[in-house]
Amino acid sequence: MPPLPATSEATLYAALADWLQGRIASGALAPETRLPSIRRMSKQRGVSIATVVQAYRLLEDRGQIEARPQSGYYVRTSAAAARAGNAPVPRMPPAAPQPREVEISSLMSRVMAEARDPSLVPLGAGCPSGELYPHDKLARFLAAAARQDSIGLTHYRIAYTAPELAAQLARRALLDGYSLEPSEIIATNGCIEALQIALRTVTRPGDVVVVESPTYFTFLEILESLGLRTIEVPAHPVDGVSLEALEMALEQHPVKAFLLVANAQNPLGCTLTDEKKRRIAELCADFGVVIIEDEINADLHFGESRPKPIRALAVGGDIVTCGSFSKTLAPGLRVGWIAGGRLTEKLRNTRSICSMSSPAVIQQGVAAFLASGGYDHHLRTIRRVYAGQLQRMSGAVLEHFPEGVRLSRPAGGFFLWVEMPAGVDAIRLHDDALAASISTAPGPAFSARARFKSCLRLNCAVAWSPRVEHAVATLGRLAREQLQRPSPP
Amino acid sequence: MPPLPATSEATLYAALADWLQGRIASGALAPETRLPSIRRMSKQRGVSIATVVQAYRLLEDRGQIEARPQSGYYVRTSAAAARAGNAPVPRMPPAAPQPREVEISSLMSRVMAEARDPSLVPLGAGCPSGELYPHDKLARFLAAAARQDSIGLTHYRIAYTAPELAAQLARRALLDGYSLEPSEIIATNGCIEALQIALRTVTRPGDVVVVESPTYFTFLEILESLGLRTIEVPAHPVDGVSLEALEMALEQHPVKAFLLVANAQNPLGCTLTDEKKRRIAELCADFGVVIIEDEINADLHFGESRPKPIRALAVGGDIVTCGSFSKTLAPGLRVGWIAGGRLTEKLRNTRSICSMSSPAVIQQGVAAFLASGGYDHHLRTIRRVYAGQLQRMSGAVLEHFPEGVRLSRPAGGFFLWVEMPAGVDAIRLHDDALAASISTAPGPAFSARARFKSCLRLNCAVAWSPRVEHAVATLGRLAREQLQRPSPP
Repeated sequence: MPPLPATSEATLYAALADWLQGRIASGALAPETRLPSIRRMSKQRGVSIATVVQAYRLLEDRGQIEARPQSGYYVRTSAAAARAGNAPVPRMPPAAPQPREVEISSLMSRVMAEARDPSLVPLGAGCPSGELYPHDKLARFLAAAARQDSIGLTHYRIAYTAPELAAQLARRALLDGYSLEPSEIIATNGCIEALQIALRTVTRPGDVVVVESPTYFTFLEILESLGLRTIEVPAHPVDGVSLEALEMALEQHPVKAFLLVANAQNPLGCTLTDEKKRRIAELCADFGVVIIEDEINADLHFGESRPKPIRALAVGGDIVTCGSFSKTLAPGLRVGWIAGGRLTEKLRNTRSICSMSSPAVIQQGVAAFLASGGYDHHLRTIRRVYAGQLQRMSGAVLEHFPEGVRLSRPAGGFFLWVEMPAGVDAIRLHDDALAASISTAPGPAFSARARFKSCLRLNCAVAWSPRVEHAVATLGRLAREQLQRPSPP
Repeated sequence: MPPLPATSEATLYAALADWLQGRIASGALAPETRLPSIRRMSKQRGVSIATVVQAYRLLEDRGQIEARPQSGYYVRTSAAAARAGNAPVPRMPPAAPQPREVEISSLMSRVMAEARDPSLVPLGAGCPSGELYPHDKLARFLAAAARQDSIGLTHYRIAYTAPELAAQLARRALLDGYSLEPSEIIATNGCIEALQIALRTVTRPGDVVVVESPTYFTFLEILESLGLRTIEVPAHPVDGVSLEALEMALEQHPVKAFLLVANAQNPLGCTLTDEKKRRIAELCADFGVVIIEDEINADLHFGESRPKPIRALAVGGDIVTCGSFSKTLAPGLRVGWIAGGRLTEKLRNTRSICSMSSPAVIQQGVAAFLASGGYDHHLRTIRRVYAGQLQRMSGAVLEHFPEGVRLSRPAGGFFLWVEMPAGVDAIRLHDDALAASISTAPGPAFSARARFKSCLRLNCAVAWSPRVEHAVATLGRLAREQLQRPSPP
């Protein structure tokens, strides 16, 4: 593997952060402990002030510590959350060899319908909590875009992409160390539409598409709706998709596309290593399989730098990259995009028959926001908040759920994947929880084969509150009740 | 047939307008003739001033006459356009009995790509000319919506429909004499997406869908992309779809849906009578076939009142109605909608997997425009302009095209359907025209069976100008050249 492009200073602050995190995990630095001041830590460890500042900021981003005004930095995890680092991770499902038609929509349409009900504690669908997002600034840019573009509202445009938006996306990619040509970027109505466009461009009904297992249930609904068949390749909660199982699937079946989330996977939260991304790109290129990657969560990484898309690491093959600002900036504006190299012209045609175009003024408003420079600051804030909420959720699950519960270790995003003891039925738990006004996403929804019977995905984008904590306690109680009183066979 | 709900006054002014139009068509009232003043006409014909005003306004809407400030009303058609009323109409294609997979996308993707090229005279794709549309007012309402809705930009919403928009659509339907429940309306990204949602809700890949022949080529592209098979039922340029052929198709094939444009059909421009709509609804209900009707052009009618959707005349069966403001108000904002009675909840699910939602702020901006009351005034303007441009185009085609050309009689919209002599190949004409920087929509694109080989659809939403007139003359010359020098077999 080539060496990482890191300066010695970068290595140093990351090393300091890791060392401190180790002490937090071991209990040497207990929750609520005040960390040494920046100046003192600099003296103690013999490093520069800047290095300590960066290390503390990194730990803050990871949700390990928090700054309190006029007081300093404190270890922020609850006792249970600190233990979460030691909880076993959920297990991988066994491989299942035959492609299969998808039929899960009735289950998931219930979960999605629940997301529209404000009376429920929203631990089901993955809806970011809007109050963290820069509404007023977006509104100003959008209003300005409406006034400035003298033709954007009233001129008909087919598969239109605002040059300003494409330029911003290309610029961000460059800063993240890879290349995205403005000419290959097509604006879409959110990421879901981008994925539809990709699938409809590279497949026909009846074709076989590989997905991760577990995978985002809306992927399965889209595949079902398009009459596509799936092969589910097991994914490890930390390491991600199994290369061996992927290779076997590509050898045995006429696969057209591999649809995956390489960064902050949904529901597992795992991020693939660069090496693994490279291997996946090679394998798919060898078999002539198009990679469709969903980058919607990549900006919500908890690591030091934004993980790269597979396209950044590939040397050949067709890779369609889809992204969106719906989870990170403007959930209500539906600004997504798709980029597909030599498939671009075909993607543009499919784009025009899916919904012709997305509104130019919306694209321009978001592009102006991006150009104004506030996005990275905003991302830093929500990453820290989501990492903290995931930690709190992990702690609460460990505290309230039955013995033997297993937890994912999200590297980004805002989902926690929970494996409960085998005696707990997640669909029954979902129904019981709904009766208690709590929405959850049951494991079987994340597979076309109704796997993950005892698993659960919890949305941690909701602000932590006594109401949420109480909901988690209720879920734990309901799960325990199932173990005490199993349902009749 | 039940009597029409018309007052005697309404009958009177329409009768007066028809009588005057007959005199214009016959040449008794020549182009550029000044009509009698309103007061004189009122005296001459023994009718009220109001009746004359209404009759003149109707003729103005139909593009027959125009008001000149401080001068009066003038017959506005050119000599050739006046003759257009007497040109034969294009012929119906013979019925073709077997369902067929669609494969036309390569041809139409070329036409759509041409629509993105501003150097071409845009007689191909159906893009309204934006300068007629109320940009500044829309911009103000949109900016206000962005400022006012404190959560619309940043809150995640699934299949969201702004209540203000649903209320406006329901109100307009009521004024037009039919019922649309706000609760059954789902906002979409334009009409194309609405139709996708309808098709994906009521069919599976491989199912059979009836379309009119000719039909809008994007319908065929969508059907192809979804793996659906089509039965094409012949449509007469004036009377519309053949009921006999429709009934035969429903008897002989397991049809799932009938996708049609009942009002201002694309490409023919015809509007079905209420009686025919009623019969279609009955037939489809009898056979359990879902009607998917595209109302996108209905507000662009040239008659006295807005024609009704089929849903207004049906007594049973499932009817999904799709509409949009993309042709009539805000081509760049992509505000469409779908309403499907008891299918609504299923449509909402499909809507969420197609692109999750459309931007709330855009829906709110358009709803505020509608509430402000400017829409009907704007519609009156563009209807008059489009009717006039269609007349001018008809006249120019008659003047420049080879002897024997046949023309449609659009009852609304902005498309003219032209049947050229059998020796002219429309695809060859399209290619020759492109070399002369003119985009056209060749007839074979309007059928999955490559019918309409010598037909052509001309977009008349483009402002009439010497450049457009010259383009029509060029098309005529190219068509004549084909007759003189047939291509090698």
